[in-house]
Amino acid sequence: MHLISYITDNNQKSFAVSDGKGLIDLTEHTGTPIEKLAEAITLVNNISEELVRELKTAPALPENIKYALPIDAENKVICVGLNYLDHAKEGGFIEAELPKHPVFFLRLNSSFVTDNENLILPKVSDKYDYEVELAVVIGREGRHIKEAEVQNHIFGYTVGMDGSVRDFQKRTPQWTLGKNFDKSGVLSGNIITKDELPENAEGLRITSKLNGNIMQDGNTKNTIYKNDLLISELSQVMTLNAGDIILTGTPAGVGFARTPRIFMKAEDIIEVEIERVGVLRNKIIAE
Amino acid sequence: MHLISYITDNNQKSFAVSDGKGLIDLTEHTGTPIEKLAEAITLVNNISEELVRELKTAPALPENIKYALPIDAENKVICVGLNYLDHAKEGGFIEAELPKHPVFFLRLNSSFVTDNENLILPKVSDKYDYEVELAVVIGREGRHIKEAEVQNHIFGYTVGMDGSVRDFQKRTPQWTLGKNFDKSGVLSGNIITKDELPENAEGLRITSKLNGNIMQDGNTKNTIYKNDLLISELSQVMTLNAGDIILTGTPAGVGFARTPRIFMKAEDIIEVEIERVGVLRNKIIAE
Repeated sequence: MHLISYITDNNQKSFAVSDGKGLIDLTEHTGTPIEKLAEAITLVNNISEELVRELKTAPALPENIKYALPIDAENKVICVGLNYLDHAKEGGFIEAELPKHPVFFLRLNSSFVTDNENLILPKVSDKYDYEVELAVVIGREGRHIKEAEVQNHIFGYTVGMDGSVRDFQKRTPQWTLGKNFDKSGVLSGNIITKDELPENAEGLRITSKLNGNIMQDGNTKNTIYKNDLLISELSQVMTLNAGDIILTGTPAGVGFARTPRIFMKAEDIIEVEIERVGVLRNKIIAE
Repeated sequence: MHLISYITDNNQKSFAVSDGKGLIDLTEHTGTPIEKLAEAITLVNNISEELVRELKTAPALPENIKYALPIDAENKVICVGLNYLDHAKEGGFIEAELPKHPVFFLRLNSSFVTDNENLILPKVSDKYDYEVELAVVIGREGRHIKEAEVQNHIFGYTVGMDGSVRDFQKRTPQWTLGKNFDKSGVLSGNIITKDELPENAEGLRITSKLNGNIMQDGNTKNTIYKNDLLISELSQVMTLNAGDIILTGTPAGVGFARTPRIFMKAEDIIEVEIERVGVLRNKIIAE
């Protein structure tokens, strides 16, 4: 099943489920407003069999559905740095042995747009880089989640683009600024429930294309830290809630590590794709 | 004037203004619900003269007011690292010359409690440290704010405690985890408007006491980066909105840099104070 965040014909943000053919709006279905991603996820958790059944006779998924950014202000987006070995090496971040613990950083919700929306090329930098990432969507609240219980807290997966302004990312030891430019990243409005994918969404091709040219071409199995460890470690620190997002890192091929370097320019099209999860296509416009 | 976030006798979160003697609840005053910090700030910006006048005959500020955490999910909390030279040196972070740009990191709203609420000593660490900080409260939306215009975007100041779990902060190059433990930091529910303080709230004594013993004793004038630069740089990256908070760093005397090291334990009392801005008193309890 897909959990879709979208803009209705009445220009309202709403949530729906789809099996790829039909569509059921969750507010219409329940008769009560489902206004937050966390509510939508909890509802799908609770009545998923009913929804799967009713999708068979549901109205068709519109061809040109307008996706909305799924996350609400209450949701947090936690990112994992250097989680693909090839990327960690190309960036010169890892010289000798693998670090024991994953590197986490935060992205503000204001740093994201969704499918087909324009990304903003900052006027203060010409070092705006792409990173395709698999996003894990948390399905239920947890703190101190044991590794063996992590799967029970995963709702599904979606595609993200962790757009990074490299000069601002690297000018101090903390990456914060370079990862938080307004409208510099992308999160898909189409979340795929975990039952539709291999465990941990592993073994899927993960690519980015800039103006049609493949820039990154990896596989989601090649991460250093797996969900069990990532989510267990995070939950030692903070409560994870339904709708929280974990962006799990990017494979090799980013612009700053290429020779010559390649950065995104105004009017470029960045497409990021994960096999069976989805594809995002966004245009870059000058601020 | 003070902008107070508090819990009313009906157990509702509300906002009020006070001159230190009287109190006007903003929802009662306007007859419409003022539910967000951003709304309260905008209202105070718009009718401050009226409020100052009416405070003279307002009901008395209750003695045992129960403060609430001022920020909403929409507000972001951006922290400045190593902004007092003595602290940057004691931590071994600065060896030769001063870095050209301030170091920023993010704290999630879930990492904060307010005045008199209990702080949680994490069960996964015994390296829980205190940091007293001056918090700048943004008063109106801005992007690409020029240094000369920064003062127009500052609403006021309050006191914060940037509680830090040092082993988690330092085990990877990004400080994220150590700065984001649930209920590990404090933000005061009492915001002082800028007209009540020296420009940039400079020249004020800033202290922390652990179980009554002074641990940090600095002055807010001793920051490396001033508000003009901090807010101007941040706004190159992201839109700052009313109610956003900037925690401006801590002076020397933190626990991890002492010989012997001192960390907070269950049942400890941490008090942080900034002259003319306020004081916070919080008890540490074991998770």
